[in-house]
Amino acid sequence: MKTKTITRERVLEQLKQVRNRTVELCQPLQTEDYIPQPAPFVSPAKWHLGHTTWFFEEFVLIPFFEGYKRYHEDFSFLFNSYYNLKGDRILRVNRGNMTRPTVKEVYDYRAYVDQVLQYFLEEMEISGKLEETIEIGWNHEQQHQELLLTDVKYILGHQPLFPSYKENFTLVDTKNASSDWLEYEGGITSVGAGSEGFSYDNEHERHSVFLAPYAIQSGLVTNGEYIEFIEAGGYENPLLWLDEGWAWVNEHQVKSPLYWHRVDDGWKYYTLSGLKDIDVENQLCHISHYEAMAFAEWKGLRLPTEFEWENSARDFEWGTRWEWTNSAYLPYPGFRKPEGAVGEYNGKFMVNQMVLRGASTATSPGHSRITYRNFFQSKHQWQCTGIRLAKNL
Amino acid sequence: MKTKTITRERVLEQLKQVRNRTVELCQPLQTEDYIPQPAPFVSPAKWHLGHTTWFFEEFVLIPFFEGYKRYHEDFSFLFNSYYNLKGDRILRVNRGNMTRPTVKEVYDYRAYVDQVLQYFLEEMEISGKLEETIEIGWNHEQQHQELLLTDVKYILGHQPLFPSYKENFTLVDTKNASSDWLEYEGGITSVGAGSEGFSYDNEHERHSVFLAPYAIQSGLVTNGEYIEFIEAGGYENPLLWLDEGWAWVNEHQVKSPLYWHRVDDGWKYYTLSGLKDIDVENQLCHISHYEAMAFAEWKGLRLPTEFEWENSARDFEWGTRWEWTNSAYLPYPGFRKPEGAVGEYNGKFMVNQMVLRGASTATSPGHSRITYRNFFQSKHQWQCTGIRLAKNL
Amino acid sequence: MKTKTITRERVLEQLKQVRNRTVELCQPLQTEDYIPQPAPFVSPAKWHLGHTTWFFEEFVLIPFFEGYKRYHEDFSFLFNSYYNLKGDRILRVNRGNMTRPTVKEVYDYRAYVDQVLQYFLEEMEISGKLEETIEIGWNHEQQHQELLLTDVKYILGHQPLFPSYKENFTLVDTKNASSDWLEYEGGITSVGAGSEGFSYDNEHERHSVFLAPYAIQSGLVTNGEYIEFIEAGGYENPLLWLDEGWAWVNEHQVKSPLYWHRVDDGWKYYTLSGLKDIDVENQLCHISHYEAMAFAEWKGLRLPTEFEWENSARDFEWGTRWEWTNSAYLPYPGFRKPEGAVGEYNGKFMVNQMVLRGASTATSPGHSRITYRNFFQSKHQWQCTGIRLAKNL
Amino acid sequence: MKTKTITRERVLEQLKQVRNRTVELCQPLQTEDYIPQPAPFVSPAKWHLGHTTWFFEEFVLIPFFEGYKRYHEDFSFLFNSYYNLKGDRILRVNRGNMTRPTVKEVYDYRAYVDQVLQYFLEEMEISGKLEETIEIGWNHEQQHQELLLTDVKYILGHQPLFPSYKENFTLVDTKNASSDWLEYEGGITSVGAGSEGFSYDNEHERHSVFLAPYAIQSGLVTNGEYIEFIEAGGYENPLLWLDEGWAWVNEHQVKSPLYWHRVDDGWKYYTLSGLKDIDVENQLCHISHYEAMAFAEWKGLRLPTEFEWENSARDFEWGTRWEWTNSAYLPYPGFRKPEGAVGEYNGKFMVNQMVLRGASTATSPGHSRITYRNFFQSKHQWQCTGIRLAKNL
Repeated sequence: MKTKTITRERVLEQLKQVRNRTVELCQPLQTEDYIPQPAPFVSPAKWHLGHTTWFFEEFVLIPFFEGYKRYHEDFSFLFNSYYNLKGDRILRVNRGNMTRPTVKEVYDYRAYVDQVLQYFLEEMEISGKLEETIEIGWNHEQQHQELLLTDVKYILGHQPLFPSYKENFTLVDTKNASSDWLEYEGGITSVGAGSEGFSYDNEHERHSVFLAPYAIQSGLVTNGEYIEFIEAGGYENPLLWLDEGWAWVNEHQVKSPLYWHRVDDGWKYYTLSGLKDIDVENQLCHISHYEAMAFAEWKGLRLPTEFEWENSARDFEWGTRWEWTNSAYLPYPGFRKPEGAVGEYNGKFMVNQMVLRGASTATSPGHSRITYRNFFQSKHQWQCTGIRLAKNL
Repeated sequence: MKTKTITRERVLEQLKQVRNRTVELCQPLQTEDYIPQPAPFVSPAKWHLGHTTWFFEEFVLIPFFEGYKRYHEDFSFLFNSYYNLKGDRILRVNRGNMTRPTVKEVYDYRAYVDQVLQYFLEEMEISGKLEETIEIGWNHEQQHQELLLTDVKYILGHQPLFPSYKENFTLVDTKNASSDWLEYEGGITSVGAGSEGFSYDNEHERHSVFLAPYAIQSGLVTNGEYIEFIEAGGYENPLLWLDEGWAWVNEHQVKSPLYWHRVDDGWKYYTLSGLKDIDVENQLCHISHYEAMAFAEWKGLRLPTEFEWENSARDFEWGTRWEWTNSAYLPYPGFRKPEGAVGEYNGKFMVNQMVLRGASTATSPGHSRITYRNFFQSKHQWQCTGIRLAKNL
Repeated sequence: MKTKTITRERVLEQLKQVRNRTVELCQPLQTEDYIPQPAPFVSPAKWHLGHTTWFFEEFVLIPFFEGYKRYHEDFSFLFNSYYNLKGDRILRVNRGNMTRPTVKEVYDYRAYVDQVLQYFLEEMEISGKLEETIEIGWNHEQQHQELLLTDVKYILGHQPLFPSYKENFTLVDTKNASSDWLEYEGGITSVGAGSEGFSYDNEHERHSVFLAPYAIQSGLVTNGEYIEFIEAGGYENPLLWLDEGWAWVNEHQVKSPLYWHRVDDGWKYYTLSGLKDIDVENQLCHISHYEAMAFAEWKGLRLPTEFEWENSARDFEWGTRWEWTNSAYLPYPGFRKPEGAVGEYNGKFMVNQMVLRGASTATSPGHSRITYRNFFQSKHQWQCTGIRLAKNL
Repeated sequence: MKTKTITRERVLEQLKQVRNRTVELCQPLQTEDYIPQPAPFVSPAKWHLGHTTWFFEEFVLIPFFEGYKRYHEDFSFLFNSYYNLKGDRILRVNRGNMTRPTVKEVYDYRAYVDQVLQYFLEEMEISGKLEETIEIGWNHEQQHQELLLTDVKYILGHQPLFPSYKENFTLVDTKNASSDWLEYEGGITSVGAGSEGFSYDNEHERHSVFLAPYAIQSGLVTNGEYIEFIEAGGYENPLLWLDEGWAWVNEHQVKSPLYWHRVDDGWKYYTLSGLKDIDVENQLCHISHYEAMAFAEWKGLRLPTEFEWENSARDFEWGTRWEWTNSAYLPYPGFRKPEGAVGEYNGKFMVNQMVLRGASTATSPGHSRITYRNFFQSKHQWQCTGIRLAKNL
């Protein structure tokens, strides 16, 4: 990953901010809420707390702080995620059965690692490699903050009594500033991250692509537009769907975005402040890539590619929804994954996932950028996903 | 269910004892331990607390206490178990995802119902029908106490760090007082519960059965004997197993009783006080009916029927293991299930389960009796099950 | 298995009859019909042909005919069923993918073994043990003839075009001669097979049982009565069902007996002569034990035990439906399974299956008797099963 | 799809050739071999015969031949594949249970449609639209010829006795003419099909792409090279695999390409002429995209993109293996799917599949071309797939 030179002070300050924010996001939770894993793709809050701490222990303290002793020998096993090189990991599907260490014990682990980190960073010389690793560490933690919020929403949103996480806290109340077609004539353009500022390996190398003429909308699809699609029988018409999408709709009996509930003649949705009436002017949220594709097909339009998006992003507002593109998540020319276990970070997921561009209301402030590539499997609805439409010219 | 006349004082005293014991059993738990459901047959401790309380609310307070208002409208939905007649129930497999109501809120529910029950029982005339229902209620709760303990063992025993529930608390440290063959010439004998004392519907009617001559052992199979079976290749020889049992062994790669771990050259097992060396003289525990049958086959012996067991039980020590019989759980002649939802209690499970007789170290004191019929599916290992051998004469 | 002395002539004649009947039952099939396995419990016709032949090769020719060479080394592997002792067997669920050996090659195998058998039986001295094994062999083949017919019905009945197996061939057109309550006062009675005639190991030892007073119907439940149950909402009322039965109904969305199709306002069913209108006076067929139990519950009655059935069978007509009892399939007192692989025949299935008594329109002539015990898992509908009701007196 | 003008004579001749070749490919089969479906992705030979015939009936005879009556009303239901618009289709996973219509009846159907087609094409004026549809029809049938061969290999290759399809018929005996690195400096290049000759919708529009400098090998990976990968522990090293690929290896316990069998110390593979020793100089075949990616990673190289392949294909030999690229199967700029059910042909599969380029020894002569895009899910091994390596310059 590319990084710019940062000072000790900035490192300490930024690290503290990020680490504190994770704890703040957990403040509204009851101890019980930290435990379950209602779906294989959801991780318990407790696991996020432990895993982000383990990351700093494993990749910063162990290699850079001579003589550091692990807080607990087994935590590496418990809080590793997909880093196969770093020893056995607990089966992802069993995370929700882990009651011990307790929530308090995980906070103790967290406090210990924070303290050692602070001591270490105040005292030691901060090499370029160390600086880079810490920067990856807090970016990694910011990613988990977003997952933590969406996982918490999934857990609470599947409680029979629809409890509120926090009053007046919502990820879905955003509206479009405008809704116009922006036109581009195409040709050669550069995409990907340059050398200034932090960026992930998957944003490199910056390279040329050739775009055909296209137009893209300045606003996102709204709840109201999507309700029209539902009412027009969108979920019952196989011709609108990708073959896999149609199988997904039928297997799971999908009839709406995630968290939507038909109540009498209208629609409500679960928000982190509880169950609410749907505002038709709000931007649509929590749809799968399959649904995004079917909606676009119904409109006679299409999703943009990730390069069309990147080429136009300075011309529209973004940052409230992760926007599905119709680009598969694949390496850029010249992509090389970093050496060692950190190298397992991004490259190994480069198959059968679709690229999302932008950021969402759940994204940590300052975490995303125009070249940022998020990615999920087509079926997932639980992120704050939305739709921006495009067309050929 | 049959019941004898009991006084108000005894009702209040017994009720208090039983209700308090459930809470005591939960004392060693951390809040986190109340939540997960690591297997479909396990219920979270929180659910046991709520469900046993719901039982008194639903079957005592609602029908007998005029004007009683439910503590919370949705708790009926949340804490119902298999009582299909009493409205929707939450899917059994999703219990482990229920973080709300919190543990504290469930204790509040419990305290409220206990208080109302006490007020009600002190003030009201206790009819025969009410007395009977309350007696079912505490017997029901005692059953759940045993399940709670075995479920807690399952939850903690599947933690990677094998935490202790309580020091010096163990369900498996019991030894045989003797080990002899007791012989019986058979003939007509009476089985089933008479009219004195409490008994379940499934123990009635008391009736005659005809037994062929048989012998039964006064002691139970020990860990040492079972280790011989393992070392003789018992788990690899299809001829010893029922066809279903052999499929079960292969599908789940079973190689030992539940909670056993091969460590170096020996065996350890998880107990509620943590991981321990196996004492070969202790009575074997945590085996499925399939394993009990295969072991008996290997010995050239067999399991007793439930009627042989009942006919001989006064002649040997029992009460430390639930003992698998080779009797299917079926109705006795003249069995009638009670009217209404309480009638769903026992009769609806009378297919594809095997009868266990006796009691175990996890059973609440005074809960079992010679005519008591416990029952589980053949595959289950997580109860405190053991083997008593029999043979034809 | 017990057997009476039989002459060489009778052995040859009976063997020929049974072997020929299997081939005759296959005459209406197209080559294609011999292949598929549309459900795990169904076996392809080709497999039945091969397996019943293998039985004679394995248990008669190999042990009794010195110097006999197997027809083909691999057929033992291909046509073994559950005889684990006799080497690897092909996974039951993959039988439908076996296109080779071809149908013709299996018939060649069959002809070869028949020829050798005939030569051998004409020339050799027939010892008691050999006689006994051959008798088991043809009884085994008669069992497979019934399975063959019901499997063929399952295969053809699941073709989209509902082809006919044979004109005027039906298993379901039988009516009751009478429908009365027959009453019995109970007491000690003897059940199980004696020493005369052929019988299976599972019918032994003949032993005493004690029966309470009961009544049993002389006729079976009809389609018309069952339609009343359906129309009364029988499939929607959880209180009528065993807990497992209710789960089965919901998981498989069962709404009628197997092969029934609602057409417009009425019912048709698939028969081996094609799709037909249901005759309400015909005896009900193709119901699971769960359905039989729910129907009896709805009537306020119950199924008989296998011993009540056996005690009364001389007093009513039987032989058109296998009749579900509410007895679990378990060993009789003194049951010993035969030595060697033939010993895997019956005993290993003695768990979680229910006993059926009688015989059906698909049973080979002369195959059943009053002490005969058939057995299937509660969920199965594809045999020619029916309901006879009983009650306590 | 684009097409050039063709004459009546050429239409008739080409149609006859293609239709006959399907029948020829089936000649070595026994009737039994036409039936089973041992994996969900495999289709029975009988289904291929019926489906390719249905295609001409549905898309040529019905719309273009006024007054044409379907051969059989239900065949549309039986032999439709993924054309959701054209009415119900039989569940893909149940194709292997369809014994009727028989093989002979499907050949009769085939002969009938061929005869009508010939009459119709000799008599009628062939419009551009009709010509185009027929051309799609035979290209469609050529695709099914390849699937038929690979499906037959799967069916016969999973028989316990490894029967031969045909002597001296093999898909795997091909060797590299050369093995050099070919270097390209990149820049703008045109890809996709132009207007001359037949091509599919997914090859359009022809468009510009920008390539970075790269090198590509003139030869394919050999069995010998892949054996080195296996012996170096390739299947046990998680760092070489995509995350999904590693899960696939572990779930299915994959240890080699499909059809490979370790025999003693060496390797054999099943070919359409039976089991054979592996020739280390032959081109590797039957590997998944996951395996191709892991192998490339192990070599420190990568797969080419589909555009790199297309840009270089004139410079190397191709046509013996379908070559996995690391391009996802997605629409080209300006892609529009045709109107109506034929429009379901390609576009609906454009998600979570990877592009293969080239052709294979199983491909019908003349069917492929440099712009041709084949596509399969990453997990599939049963096509004649291979690996061509590339690298950045």
